[in-house]
Amino acid sequence: MSGYLDARPRVGYFYTGKSNDHILSDKVKTITVGHYKSRPVVVTESSSVYEAVTTMFLEDVGTLFVVDKLSTLSGVVSRKDLLRASLGQQSLESIPVGVIMTRMPNVTVCEDQDSIIEVAKKLINKQIDGLPIVKKVSHGSGYEVTGRITKTNMTSLLVDLANNETI
Amino acid sequence: MSGYLDARPRVGYFYTGKSNDHILSDKVKTITVGHYKSRPVVVTESSSVYEAVTTMFLEDVGTLFVVDKLSTLSGVVSRKDLLRASLGQQSLESIPVGVIMTRMPNVTVCEDQDSIIEVAKKLINKQIDGLPIVKKVSHGSGYEVTGRITKTNMTSLLVDLANNETI
Repeated sequence: MSGYLDARPRVGYFYTGKSNDHILSDKVKTITVGHYKSRPVVVTESSSVYEAVTTMFLEDVGTLFVVDKLSTLSGVVSRKDLLRASLGQQSLESIPVGVIMTRMPNVTVCEDQDSIIEVAKKLINKQIDGLPIVKKVSHGSGYEVTGRITKTNMTSLLVDLANNETI
Repeated sequence: MSGYLDARPRVGYFYTGKSNDHILSDKVKTITVGHYKSRPVVVTESSSVYEAVTTMFLEDVGTLFVVDKLSTLSGVVSRKDLLRASLGQQSLESIPVGVIMTRMPNVTVCEDQDSIIEVAKKLINKQIDGLPIVKKVSHGSGYEVTGRITKTNMTSLLVDLANNETI
């Protein structure tokens, strides 16, 4: 029943005033992105849209991260971006992914130690499926991609919470 | 503190043996699909793939439900299906969506009163983004589409749980 009663010297036990709901939300709020991340799938800026679509199918992901020559994050491309590009009249082999991606600094990123709930809010507010997890570096765009966190990870966390299996 | 202590006549209060985690999971398991559903977006089987892609962008959804002439569910088409179709050499205006969709009875469906956690597990196990919520009818395919439940709804539920705001 830990969390309901707390102890103070010379006072003894007292009721913390926390309800079930508060203890639950305290628990959920301590879970970080690093606990639930997936591996990132990256393509280079000069890859064609066709190559990006192929990579998306072969790796079975919904979001690709685009890196520059220094292997730092330069953009993000989603299924929606690729679908929009495929509506055009141009051949998908001739368009580099760098033309259609969302480019830094307009990309929302997060880090391993961020709260997973704060990231879940970002996914909803910005209407995106996934975010790159980054590590700050001193070259290129300043961000190295280390992982991926998506609405699928959020759904897994929800199932784990219901089964008392959170990490 | 409800849930931790229970009462029995001539016994008095006793500890139910439930931990925080059990009470949480009991709570989550009572939430149904109907509490968190979104409105469905449908196209007809004879719509072209081009029309389906346009509807997907205009309505800003990731999954479309396909209905037959009796307005009952005949299939589901995802961004992934449309992207795959757009890789082909054919014009998207000339392919009916009925050709590329996942067709009944291979479509997983759910109903308003189903547990949202059971549906979350289906989304993960079957690697799909969303399910149609249906009502049984006695004509056509036997299912009328009444809603849509997606990983976005699951992410919202997770945020609400963390904020003590579940419906």
